[in-house]
Amino acid sequence: MTESVHDYMNRLGRAAREASRVVARASTAQKNRALQAAAAALDAAREELAEANRKDLENGRGNGLDEAMLDRLALTPARIDDMIEGLRQVASLADPIGEIRDMRYLPSGIQVGKMRVPLGVIGIIYESRPNVTIDAASLCLKSGNATILRGGSEAIHSNQAIARCIQLGLAEAGLPAAAVQVVETTDREAVGRLISMPEYVDVIVPRGGKSLIERISRDARVPVIKHLDGVCHVYIDEAADLDKAIRVADNAKTQRYAPCNTMETLLVDAAIAERVLPPLATIYHDKGVELRGCERTCALLGGAVTAAVEDDWFAEYNAPILAIRIVDSLDAAIEHINHYGSHHTDAIVTENFTRARRFLTEVDSSSVMVNASTRFADGFEYGLGAEIGISTDKLHARGPVGLEGLTSEKYVVFGDGHIRT
Amino acid sequence: MTESVHDYMNRLGRAAREASRVVARASTAQKNRALQAAAAALDAAREELAEANRKDLENGRGNGLDEAMLDRLALTPARIDDMIEGLRQVASLADPIGEIRDMRYLPSGIQVGKMRVPLGVIGIIYESRPNVTIDAASLCLKSGNATILRGGSEAIHSNQAIARCIQLGLAEAGLPAAAVQVVETTDREAVGRLISMPEYVDVIVPRGGKSLIERISRDARVPVIKHLDGVCHVYIDEAADLDKAIRVADNAKTQRYAPCNTMETLLVDAAIAERVLPPLATIYHDKGVELRGCERTCALLGGAVTAAVEDDWFAEYNAPILAIRIVDSLDAAIEHINHYGSHHTDAIVTENFTRARRFLTEVDSSSVMVNASTRFADGFEYGLGAEIGISTDKLHARGPVGLEGLTSEKYVVFGDGHIRT
Repeated sequence: MTESVHDYMNRLGRAAREASRVVARASTAQKNRALQAAAAALDAAREELAEANRKDLENGRGNGLDEAMLDRLALTPARIDDMIEGLRQVASLADPIGEIRDMRYLPSGIQVGKMRVPLGVIGIIYESRPNVTIDAASLCLKSGNATILRGGSEAIHSNQAIARCIQLGLAEAGLPAAAVQVVETTDREAVGRLISMPEYVDVIVPRGGKSLIERISRDARVPVIKHLDGVCHVYIDEAADLDKAIRVADNAKTQRYAPCNTMETLLVDAAIAERVLPPLATIYHDKGVELRGCERTCALLGGAVTAAVEDDWFAEYNAPILAIRIVDSLDAAIEHINHYGSHHTDAIVTENFTRARRFLTEVDSSSVMVNASTRFADGFEYGLGAEIGISTDKLHARGPVGLEGLTSEKYVVFGDGHIRT
Repeated sequence: MTESVHDYMNRLGRAAREASRVVARASTAQKNRALQAAAAALDAAREELAEANRKDLENGRGNGLDEAMLDRLALTPARIDDMIEGLRQVASLADPIGEIRDMRYLPSGIQVGKMRVPLGVIGIIYESRPNVTIDAASLCLKSGNATILRGGSEAIHSNQAIARCIQLGLAEAGLPAAAVQVVETTDREAVGRLISMPEYVDVIVPRGGKSLIERISRDARVPVIKHLDGVCHVYIDEAADLDKAIRVADNAKTQRYAPCNTMETLLVDAAIAERVLPPLATIYHDKGVELRGCERTCALLGGAVTAAVEDDWFAEYNAPILAIRIVDSLDAAIEHINHYGSHHTDAIVTENFTRARRFLTEVDSSSVMVNASTRFADGFEYGLGAEIGISTDKLHARGPVGLEGLTSEKYVVFGDGHIRT
């Protein structure tokens, strides 16, 4: 094209900024209508979607993508169903925008409270899965934000086909086309520009592998809502109920291996290790989970476990591998979690009220749990209705990020000609 | 010193990180005791404080600081009183840490809510006023954070004398000395390092001139809670009560000229301009405020006003100068504010419910007001009890930042052996 990537991105940015003001004041009904109409458009465009996806899959095969990548890229009929269902679910969520809370009279006579407002323009950078286009666009739209979506070049045709359905939805509701824009160039410079125009983009949400997220966090000139690692722990306290401990430790590791909220290290108090570890080792063995233990764990479990090295305590395996460490106290468990963990999600299993309370207070993670599986750390399980990611940062959004994480609050002040004296 | 600045800052950082874990779980009583004891120590150290401050003032004069700088640097007995009173006020505030809210049962049977927690380690970078040392340290301590304070080199002796009082307070309460650390080198490299060690510092709060804040925001590798400009507006709607309009527009400009929440541009609806501007012009004239108006304002007010140029609409005068523009509608006023303003604080004066509502919704500023002076945008006036600054950013804290802005929330999950299926 004759337009430079820099100018192209500026144009998208300017249009997004303008559109964001319209979307910010759109009514709930109008936003829901756009979401429902986009769902209907997806349903009507199944053939075009399949055709566009076929192109991406062919190119992907030609470019030597592996089977896992191709699988993530595929838009099967079931996945199209999921996208349609997702749009309808977001439409059914309560609108967070405009909520006014805590209006209180102050001694001066003014009344002060807060109003929930959109962030403005959100840039989403993601890899192969085309369904992210719908997920991200629908959450941003419902929360009154404009979006610029930059998917992977391998999914460009699929993403553009999906974007056309979103455009139909926006038009149907009388909302500006620039409320949701898909970057149409595969030039890498587009990402560099997207993350460095604070005048047009308020926040970046990267979704993908750790190296992508690290690179974007390092280079971005605007705030980034991000999730890096999920090194989650379950600590079985000496006062744990044996049955609950086994159920939670089993589920946290084996319900699914890949998610970020899966347990990677099991900590067991020395006082209960002999009772809880042998039955757990049998369960893990039957499910094909490789165990890597500290010295005491190896001594207790013998051949069922290999020796863990220092790196194992930092590892996010995302695989049927589990590190196990026997510790002498709650203090040692908390110390281990805060040092080796990723501040994502950690659980204690105990019947002891005081130690449960200490664990909740002192473990510095985005989710802290008592007698529940770490696998619950999820926007849907937490009742947020949706999730754009899980933030392990402390500022702004922490933990699963739903609609509210895509908003901000401003102060509202009412007076009757009040002046400051 | 033989230790490099880099190593010195790393040492402070490590110590702060360790201390932050202790302060995070300190009881309310313990934190308050440290604050009260520091207040007593300040009261007992008036002579040492005066002596240290004398050194800074002498050096300042030798280095050619101007009178305004020397005034900001001076620790008068009244300012020491203010610091002591400030510590006692922070001690009297409710402790935000540990508050658990919204614990709700979800369909799976788990109970989910949020707990308020400290951010961790806060780096404060500020210029000449030594009282910031007390303000910042007390707010950070009360909110359970460790602090690293980097004041201006011109105030180094004063800041160190104040820091010794804080140390006495921490010791009295059994809290670690590293909970509040003052950077003891005046080497500029110390700032560079402080803003780029995310492993030790969670957030930076710069306080000072715009160029300092811009530089830190650009270079920081950790999140920054900042406030850049205060270009605040009052819009007098056609349905304004004349008396309220005049009181608010007078107060917003003339109560004090320097603060960031002072009005810099007055917008007046054309339908009311002839009634409201002449009496206002008289008031401003009597108070020595220079007026710069749009063409229509000049035509209406004649010689009392000079012609404004484009730059006047962007200007934060912090001085007895006011830009005035006559607009044709609420839409034009909102458009002007969102384009030329700094998203700080803007007010409408009107008796019309629908236009008040639109102004609140559509003006994209950290504080939006109806029939009240912009001068109210302040942590104390909003009932926060204290203020570390006013944020014009949208993420995390927006508007006046009190104790809550120095905290985060984590998810808390209670179960009874619950697992995900």
